[in-house]
Amino acid sequence: MHAPMLKVVGLRAQVLGGGPLSHCGAVRDNRLMDTAVFLIQCPDEKGLVARISTFFYERGFNIVHCQQHTDATTGQYYMRLMIDLADLRTSRERTETEFGAFAAPLGLDWTVHYSAPLQRMAILVTKAPHCLYDLLVRQQEGELPCEIPLIAGNHADLEPVAASFRVPFHCLPVTAATKEAQEARLDALLRENHVELVVMARYMQILSEPFIEKWRGRVINIHHGFLPAFQGARPYQQAYERGVKMIGATAHYATAELDEGPIIEQDVVRVTHESTPEALTRIGRDIERTVLARAVKAHLEHRIIVAGRRTIVFS
Amino acid sequence: MHAPMLKVVGLRAQVLGGGPLSHCGAVRDNRLMDTAVFLIQCPDEKGLVARISTFFYERGFNIVHCQQHTDATTGQYYMRLMIDLADLRTSRERTETEFGAFAAPLGLDWTVHYSAPLQRMAILVTKAPHCLYDLLVRQQEGELPCEIPLIAGNHADLEPVAASFRVPFHCLPVTAATKEAQEARLDALLRENHVELVVMARYMQILSEPFIEKWRGRVINIHHGFLPAFQGARPYQQAYERGVKMIGATAHYATAELDEGPIIEQDVVRVTHESTPEALTRIGRDIERTVLARAVKAHLEHRIIVAGRRTIVFS
Amino acid sequence: MHAPMLKVVGLRAQVLGGGPLSHCGAVRDNRLMDTAVFLIQCPDEKGLVARISTFFYERGFNIVHCQQHTDATTGQYYMRLMIDLADLRTSRERTETEFGAFAAPLGLDWTVHYSAPLQRMAILVTKAPHCLYDLLVRQQEGELPCEIPLIAGNHADLEPVAASFRVPFHCLPVTAATKEAQEARLDALLRENHVELVVMARYMQILSEPFIEKWRGRVINIHHGFLPAFQGARPYQQAYERGVKMIGATAHYATAELDEGPIIEQDVVRVTHESTPEALTRIGRDIERTVLARAVKAHLEHRIIVAGRRTIVFS
Amino acid sequence: MHAPMLKVVGLRAQVLGGGPLSHCGAVRDNRLMDTAVFLIQCPDEKGLVARISTFFYERGFNIVHCQQHTDATTGQYYMRLMIDLADLRTSRERTETEFGAFAAPLGLDWTVHYSAPLQRMAILVTKAPHCLYDLLVRQQEGELPCEIPLIAGNHADLEPVAASFRVPFHCLPVTAATKEAQEARLDALLRENHVELVVMARYMQILSEPFIEKWRGRVINIHHGFLPAFQGARPYQQAYERGVKMIGATAHYATAELDEGPIIEQDVVRVTHESTPEALTRIGRDIERTVLARAVKAHLEHRIIVAGRRTIVFS
Repeated sequence: MHAPMLKVVGLRAQVLGGGPLSHCGAVRDNRLMDTAVFLIQCPDEKGLVARISTFFYERGFNIVHCQQHTDATTGQYYMRLMIDLADLRTSRERTETEFGAFAAPLGLDWTVHYSAPLQRMAILVTKAPHCLYDLLVRQQEGELPCEIPLIAGNHADLEPVAASFRVPFHCLPVTAATKEAQEARLDALLRENHVELVVMARYMQILSEPFIEKWRGRVINIHHGFLPAFQGARPYQQAYERGVKMIGATAHYATAELDEGPIIEQDVVRVTHESTPEALTRIGRDIERTVLARAVKAHLEHRIIVAGRRTIVFS
Repeated sequence: MHAPMLKVVGLRAQVLGGGPLSHCGAVRDNRLMDTAVFLIQCPDEKGLVARISTFFYERGFNIVHCQQHTDATTGQYYMRLMIDLADLRTSRERTETEFGAFAAPLGLDWTVHYSAPLQRMAILVTKAPHCLYDLLVRQQEGELPCEIPLIAGNHADLEPVAASFRVPFHCLPVTAATKEAQEARLDALLRENHVELVVMARYMQILSEPFIEKWRGRVINIHHGFLPAFQGARPYQQAYERGVKMIGATAHYATAELDEGPIIEQDVVRVTHESTPEALTRIGRDIERTVLARAVKAHLEHRIIVAGRRTIVFS
Repeated sequence: MHAPMLKVVGLRAQVLGGGPLSHCGAVRDNRLMDTAVFLIQCPDEKGLVARISTFFYERGFNIVHCQQHTDATTGQYYMRLMIDLADLRTSRERTETEFGAFAAPLGLDWTVHYSAPLQRMAILVTKAPHCLYDLLVRQQEGELPCEIPLIAGNHADLEPVAASFRVPFHCLPVTAATKEAQEARLDALLRENHVELVVMARYMQILSEPFIEKWRGRVINIHHGFLPAFQGARPYQQAYERGVKMIGATAHYATAELDEGPIIEQDVVRVTHESTPEALTRIGRDIERTVLARAVKAHLEHRIIVAGRRTIVFS
Repeated sequence: MHAPMLKVVGLRAQVLGGGPLSHCGAVRDNRLMDTAVFLIQCPDEKGLVARISTFFYERGFNIVHCQQHTDATTGQYYMRLMIDLADLRTSRERTETEFGAFAAPLGLDWTVHYSAPLQRMAILVTKAPHCLYDLLVRQQEGELPCEIPLIAGNHADLEPVAASFRVPFHCLPVTAATKEAQEARLDALLRENHVELVVMARYMQILSEPFIEKWRGRVINIHHGFLPAFQGARPYQQAYERGVKMIGATAHYATAELDEGPIIEQDVVRVTHESTPEALTRIGRDIERTVLARAVKAHLEHRIIVAGRRTIVFS
């Protein structure tokens, strides 16, 4: 189930009570379409496709995409359903209320996400520019359906990059002593800017557990190692010493346990005995940015449902 | 739409008239389940998911998988739907008749394929053993849901391989002069053995147009080049001369136009300036057999619908 | 620079006469080292490694890298040899003269390239920014050992990108009528700026044969298709229509025959039936920029020798 | 054979004393050539290429391949040099003696390996046939330059596979109580058959430390996980639970520390949330056999030098 549901237990009741958890989202599978994505999970039972799709059919909606997954181990059912809002004959609120009433007796956990307005994404950085440039260029080219109201760095090095894309940059230096205050400022900034997704684009700080909990399911990190191998610091040095023949990168939702969050995307690249730790660092940059971009895109398109330590990522 | 439907125009009427074209198939996504797969295509319109899934829900079936694709260019809708036959309360024939009556007014083209009995697959070979071994081992390990009643070769070299797997081997030598007679013998053999899928596992002969037409949609070939590059003879030599940095293999349905049939699966492997044509041949064997196996598996699991020159391959 | 030696017969005599063709280059395999790379080719014969390495050993040079390739088909021998200039006891010129005298009786074609000063690279663009950004960021991070004195575009769209990296941008609009004049201006610009490598970073113009001939071996183009498949215009549309399961990109030296130049680097990415031509275009951008960057890096590090239609790319 | 030289200090003296440690090997880079491969390592210093290549040039040998690597961290130099024995004017022994005398003052650790007679390789198996078939077919096709005098299994299941390739099969059941005796029998069998390389082709037993020590550097294992992730038992189950998006396989030299030996080759394959542990097992088989075959081929072609926990694998 999409992120907010994992965050606050109290919301679960609210969901079951009929209301959607969030309807903040944006999706642009089809650039001209005004759409809504429903992410649904519940215990598997007969007739779910028929009943859910009939709900929308009876209201005149065209189902643009309908994807499902049943986890054979847990018996849990997951669905992603995109409808065309051009067919919306009432209001979003009315449809949500009706779907809530329909969903409650079936025990569906659900959220709904609209293609407009666009989601708002913040980027956290330190000094390495490659992931930042990558996200900015992709957003500029329309590949990432979001707005970027702010970039924050614990160093000022990347301020000129932000400036060249006309994105406000906030320098938030941090030391062990100031960490709590710095995170409070960051949290305030994110809220003022109505940020819905935070991307750690090689942000070389560990976010505190309280911060992570507040933003659970809405912070994506890129780890420069093929998790679960090479957790923690200096993964390329670790990889060199172990003599691996491929290095990897892993994008995951940040959780309080470092490098243990649900994995969204991974990729690897072949290296040889000639690759020094410095070469691994350089080679790795290419997969770091690609893997991070794919994960961010999947999140922004509402194709991810977190299921415990695993993710369902619809294609 | 599944293969037979594309083959004979006359059969279309029969399908629309209510009967499925074939129900010969086998699928083993779940090894313990008795299942049926419906492959459906029609012009896209609202409510298809709802109406089709409701048909099965009303009859008490559990839908194990439901995958769809809409071709935005042509407006054609494609669906693959797997149901659990444990829930079958009447007969297969009755269900088919009812589905036919349901499908006709909606204009659905459809076929149904059952997980039992297993499909029957023939393998055509010449002298190269790598693809043959690969298919035989995979079938033996239960990865390919089929029986292999026969292997035929235009040379006798691989008879011992067939013998070691206890599969009857038929040596059908061929020259330009005897081609028609040889293909007639092959056709007879395939029919006597109730073969439903013919796999050209590096069979170094071009099947004639009449033969191909008779078996259209049921012959899979592996081409040792990354189509559409390097069509025709000696693709590795061509690749060497052009100095490409990757070589590929392509599995496709055989059609009368050589190497022009709908592509099912492709893959490539990196090569360097050190790779001689002989090295390319050796390196290429690994992707030939992998690509062919993936294509055969997709066909046997009824995950492929041919749409003109393209294929929809559900994952 | 290896290319000219392959191009003009007259220059061969000059090389054999003792002088290297060019010594403009730069290499940064080791960032702290002052090095020279010798690229050598000649008919294969016994003792080449021994004699060439002894030449440098006797003069007190350490050989940092020594890579070779013998083309079994043509009997041609290729060598890339990097020496540490920290050991240079005389002058570059003196060493070149001595090597020329040594090389002439052996019939060696050779060039030498120094790590300092840095090579000068120009980038040609039209409207698509992804390859441009990629090259600029990599150069900024020290991954590409070169200076970028200018960017030229036939449209002005990417001027702000150039500005944000503080690189002069020249807008050179072109029509069929003005092509000759525009290319003359471009040629003048390149010469004024002492440019040694021209990179077509999705420059959507075909350079004329005279221009190409003047810059032969020094113009790298990125083609958004897996050559030799999908030559010419709209390769992604072609790929869609053919229904391929992977799309590719190819970096090659530009020659007068469109898309026929020696291939430097290629890569592919998997696509599915769901990928529309627009999706292919978006997906393809990731491999276009990666493939182009790898090719440019190999050229700048003097790891490429062109051999007819093929390239030797040392790793 | 490089391994023993790294293992036993006492042997070092023998090597330095002039004699090669072993000259058992085989190489078939060129199928028609009679060749020898020298694997050399020593502290890096100036002039090594020149002096070593001159040694062979003066004796009239053609150097077919010459590859080098310098480890920047340790300052250790590694060389693989293949010479054409068609030019041998004296005897192998004489050449070895002369090279020994040449190598001793330079402090070279070296071994020499001849292309004839072929090396002898044993395969250890349990019940899974995919790696066994793969190795047998590749050997039969001439891709692996070796003879296979025996296959041993702790279960009898794969005896028919061995029989179909006419390779003697030895069933050596093992329990905790009989392990020492079983390994003694295995060791005797290997020695009687003059085995030089032992391949664990999904042999589901941990070889004891004494056995491993005796065969150090001559036992290759395939681990069905992307080491160092997922060491130990049931790596596919571990991978499933962690929710990784790619699974891998790792071929390494067996050492006393389980799954910690020097890695020779690795590869990965993409999986999704739909892949159950059973699916991962099936998908993983394809990379297990490919990775194992590449590692075995590299070993048989004397392209590997072990350097501590890392391997140099020349291409």
